[in-house]
Amino acid sequence: MSLIHRLDARSPEFDAALTRLLAYDASQDEAIETAVRDILHDVRTRGDAAILDYTARFDHVRADRLEALEIPRADWQAALDGLPADQRAALEAAADRVRRYHEHQRAETWTYTEPDGTVLGQQVTPLDRVGLYVPGGKAAYPSSVLMNAIPAKVAGVSELIMVTPTPGGARNPMVLAAAALGGADRVFAIGGAQAVGGLAYGTRTLPAVDKIVGPGNAYVAAAKRRVFGTVGIDMIAGPSEILIVADGSTPAEWLAIDLFSQAEHDELAQAILLCPDGGYLDAVQAAIERLLPAQPRADILRVSLANRGALIRTGSLEQACDIVNRIAPEHLELSVRDPQALLPLVRHAGAIFLGAYSSESLGDYCAGPNHVLPTARTARFSSPLGVYDFQKRSSLIQVSQAGAQTLGRIAATLATGEGLHAHAASASLRLDPQP
Amino acid sequence: MSLIHRLDARSPEFDAALTRLLAYDASQDEAIETAVRDILHDVRTRGDAAILDYTARFDHVRADRLEALEIPRADWQAALDGLPADQRAALEAAADRVRRYHEHQRAETWTYTEPDGTVLGQQVTPLDRVGLYVPGGKAAYPSSVLMNAIPAKVAGVSELIMVTPTPGGARNPMVLAAAALGGADRVFAIGGAQAVGGLAYGTRTLPAVDKIVGPGNAYVAAAKRRVFGTVGIDMIAGPSEILIVADGSTPAEWLAIDLFSQAEHDELAQAILLCPDGGYLDAVQAAIERLLPAQPRADILRVSLANRGALIRTGSLEQACDIVNRIAPEHLELSVRDPQALLPLVRHAGAIFLGAYSSESLGDYCAGPNHVLPTARTARFSSPLGVYDFQKRSSLIQVSQAGAQTLGRIAATLATGEGLHAHAASASLRLDPQP
Repeated sequence: MSLIHRLDARSPEFDAALTRLLAYDASQDEAIETAVRDILHDVRTRGDAAILDYTARFDHVRADRLEALEIPRADWQAALDGLPADQRAALEAAADRVRRYHEHQRAETWTYTEPDGTVLGQQVTPLDRVGLYVPGGKAAYPSSVLMNAIPAKVAGVSELIMVTPTPGGARNPMVLAAAALGGADRVFAIGGAQAVGGLAYGTRTLPAVDKIVGPGNAYVAAAKRRVFGTVGIDMIAGPSEILIVADGSTPAEWLAIDLFSQAEHDELAQAILLCPDGGYLDAVQAAIERLLPAQPRADILRVSLANRGALIRTGSLEQACDIVNRIAPEHLELSVRDPQALLPLVRHAGAIFLGAYSSESLGDYCAGPNHVLPTARTARFSSPLGVYDFQKRSSLIQVSQAGAQTLGRIAATLATGEGLHAHAASASLRLDPQP
Repeated sequence: MSLIHRLDARSPEFDAALTRLLAYDASQDEAIETAVRDILHDVRTRGDAAILDYTARFDHVRADRLEALEIPRADWQAALDGLPADQRAALEAAADRVRRYHEHQRAETWTYTEPDGTVLGQQVTPLDRVGLYVPGGKAAYPSSVLMNAIPAKVAGVSELIMVTPTPGGARNPMVLAAAALGGADRVFAIGGAQAVGGLAYGTRTLPAVDKIVGPGNAYVAAAKRRVFGTVGIDMIAGPSEILIVADGSTPAEWLAIDLFSQAEHDELAQAILLCPDGGYLDAVQAAIERLLPAQPRADILRVSLANRGALIRTGSLEQACDIVNRIAPEHLELSVRDPQALLPLVRHAGAIFLGAYSSESLGDYCAGPNHVLPTARTARFSSPLGVYDFQKRSSLIQVSQAGAQTLGRIAATLATGEGLHAHAASASLRLDPQP
């Protein structure tokens, strides 16, 4: 098995090879689907009691009442106060920067008035109550707490309820500290499909929420998919991806490590570099070979780079951008001298990092933009998590008496054409009597 | 069976009665799910040939090649030219007003520069290609073509592909005329799950799209749900709903007909009136009794009003607004003297019609805002169809060398805390060497 695929975009076999490289089986596991269906039904039927049973079974945490699994605010504050000074400062700086960026995304209500006095517009309001799922165990990332909680609070969500499993009773102090900094309102030590069901349907103790966001394992993802419609959900994330376009001006080691920073997530993560300079690709490959053995997560890196990584020679930077649009990557680094020149050629990407100093890792933690991004080509039609995911719009229509005369005739004609007689009558009734 | 439910929000049994009234079984039909799964698999495998087979079987339209089922632009223009003058004028006026309103929704790219030269922002781009499903037969509404097509074209979608079944070869000239006015780029005479699959996966003749919007029957809805993730979709609509808050100042006949205008859609449509004045509710009920027999769609009205309609007496207008937020209706009429006084109390509704002259029917056709609205309480977390559904955002992150010094230290600290070593290394590599 080679270290990493080498492909050439100028070859006639390239299209097929790229398709194989990108292939990813997102099909759902029937056993998980069935288990989740049953858990959700049970939570919907038995409420608190069902959540307590599953928490005892899966997390080995036993309680008589669900109230006992709420983690009080004093505990989060203690977790924050207990952090080493550098970690606390870093977490606070990240939260501040994320908050400042997201404040630019807040949409406002607007209206306009037509000459006849009719007012049209759009009212923007926050969601009332949001559930935030935070995984327990090894994938418990405090940065994800901030990235999910802050946009919700900037939007004006009045109640943010975090759930996070504590297997064997082990709490993650960084996650609790992030809950305090991110603005959570309540935290429950529950997880899995049972927590998703509790948030979606509501129980005696858990209030029903309007939307559930946050990453989770296959059970959590399946549960979110099933409760969609009862509540809103964010996107179901696939494996993480980085795509780098390089012109050879960035030190080869920097990009080798940038590829690692994605590939280290898990064995399905995808790291791809596009460059028209074959010699530079050789240099990056040499850097990968040299640096890999010392990486603490070398075992994961070897698998993800060999299976899903690639160094691709392109005919030009323009051809590289065509490939970018085909892949529609979650993360795109334009590691070139003049990234602004390439930017207009990029149509589809979750986040675009411009220039050699803009490593994806800065965006993952503290640059400001969200790190919850569309994966698996969904950047063709979807966006980073943002304040807009926690606001919704209502159309405003205030028709004046004069306006009803004009609009009523149009509506009556069209409604009659569609055979909707009461629609036509409703418009016609508002017409002034003819003199 | 009574004509319409009468409820009293001041009674202790009201909560349970309202829950029963709103109950709606959205569960999916297993036979439909299985049929749709097989059709999608077949279209994915056999492409054009599968679409031709299903079109022959379900629509009784036979063709040798899928190209033969494309309806050329000249045919839409002929349909538009062939409309009666009043219908054409009404359709053009509606299209103009819808376009003007939606132009207010277009989001723009923004950036800001920090003191150290780091640039952050958000790039807004349109989707490349969108599929628009338009039902055939009795539910073929040209207004829906406009409401779906215009926001996509205002967003800048470069290719809008409409599909509409033509059972027995019968084309709907109003729908084709609306395709011409709305800005469709191509139209195919195909429908059902096979058309949805063709748009999602692409075939030799049908290009793969990035998102599919538009209403359809249970097969179309099931197919959209299944291809979600491969492409984006709009919301799956439930039965249509109107909720009216009245203070008694609007003529009782107007509101009786407004209730009809929703209830006439189908037998599951929901029409509810809230008013603190019992005498006024009696007057509306009398108007319903008087006006119903002459309604062309009286048979549908009787069923939907008796099963799902209600006149509800509230303790106050404020209590009425609390009920509005609980129901989160698709359409809300504030048919009161001072609607602006109530507006701040309304948190959840798809479209809000203010004042006695603002009948829902005007919004359905030509006021300007979209008539594709969240149903079944989803206005708690979702919005009318809009230009924002056809645009997506990419985060922009251009970190300066100076910025990389500040951000790199924060990111390295947090990444180390999360055990992501390559993330930390990627940030640390960009730090200037210490003197």
